[in-house]
Amino acid sequence: MSSAVIDRDAIFETDFIKEMLRQTRALDSYGIWDGKPAEDILEPFVLTKERKALIPLIGDPDEETISRIKAFYNAIAVLIEKECGMMAVSLVHLSHEGFGRVLITIGKLVALDRTLRDVHRFGFESLSKMKTEADKMLSVALEIIGTYPDVAGM
Amino acid sequence: MSSAVIDRDAIFETDFIKEMLRQTRALDSYGIWDGKPAEDILEPFVLTKERKALIPLIGDPDEETISRIKAFYNAIAVLIEKECGMMAVSLVHLSHEGFGRVLITIGKLVALDRTLRDVHRFGFESLSKMKTEADKMLSVALEIIGTYPDVAGM
Repeated sequence: MSSAVIDRDAIFETDFIKEMLRQTRALDSYGIWDGKPAEDILEPFVLTKERKALIPLIGDPDEETISRIKAFYNAIAVLIEKECGMMAVSLVHLSHEGFGRVLITIGKLVALDRTLRDVHRFGFESLSKMKTEADKMLSVALEIIGTYPDVAGM
Repeated sequence: MSSAVIDRDAIFETDFIKEMLRQTRALDSYGIWDGKPAEDILEPFVLTKERKALIPLIGDPDEETISRIKAFYNAIAVLIEKECGMMAVSLVHLSHEGFGRVLITIGKLVALDRTLRDVHRFGFESLSKMKTEADKMLSVALEIIGTYPDVAGM
């Protein structure tokens, strides 16, 4: 077995990727992902720089893209919840033309607050890059919660 | 001068109503409020129970209603900012069919977090009732900030 295959299997065993699969399947009202392998289901999250450049930044992003953004931040909220045992709520707010803001709150604490830009081109170089990004946000969020547990517990 | 007239004048001198006028004028891209008295400008915020009942809760609320909700919570955010000297950001998020959530954050602190329902019927019995509502939210928000000034100051 090559190391690439081992890595691939390892990433699909992580909590984050498992949660991403759960989130994506939850959005699948028509059952088009039923019986499909995990890689196929998460494939739309992978966008190389070249593929991104082909997506025009005109008008509002499509529903599928918005769903993927929600799935991604929902997955982070679920992981925060698992780690700290308190309810985390994510809110993805798109204002216009691909701009927006995402918040994850726990009680009265803002654990994540990001400005979104070029939402049309939401995606990652690879699943592993996506996981790295999510891990970073998770650890920042958990640090904030660790500093102000009473605010989060309100 | 009757007491009603005195009350009316008094309310238009309050910071909240002044800010509501500023917010509403800011949304007035076509200048339709230019030179109009304050009462006329704020009139759409006043909805009696009877008038509310006439508004159907079907589909998404119209742009004007959404603008008024934003003006109201922006005004509260501005007052919070004036009182505590830190930047307050309001976010009005409508999910579907008149449901939504509004957040006002200061740094990492959630100073206001409300679920919105029946957004189509957003309005108050009178300007004085609107001010009372806003004053309540303001005082709750300032109390939270007073309890966690370091979280707000992040």
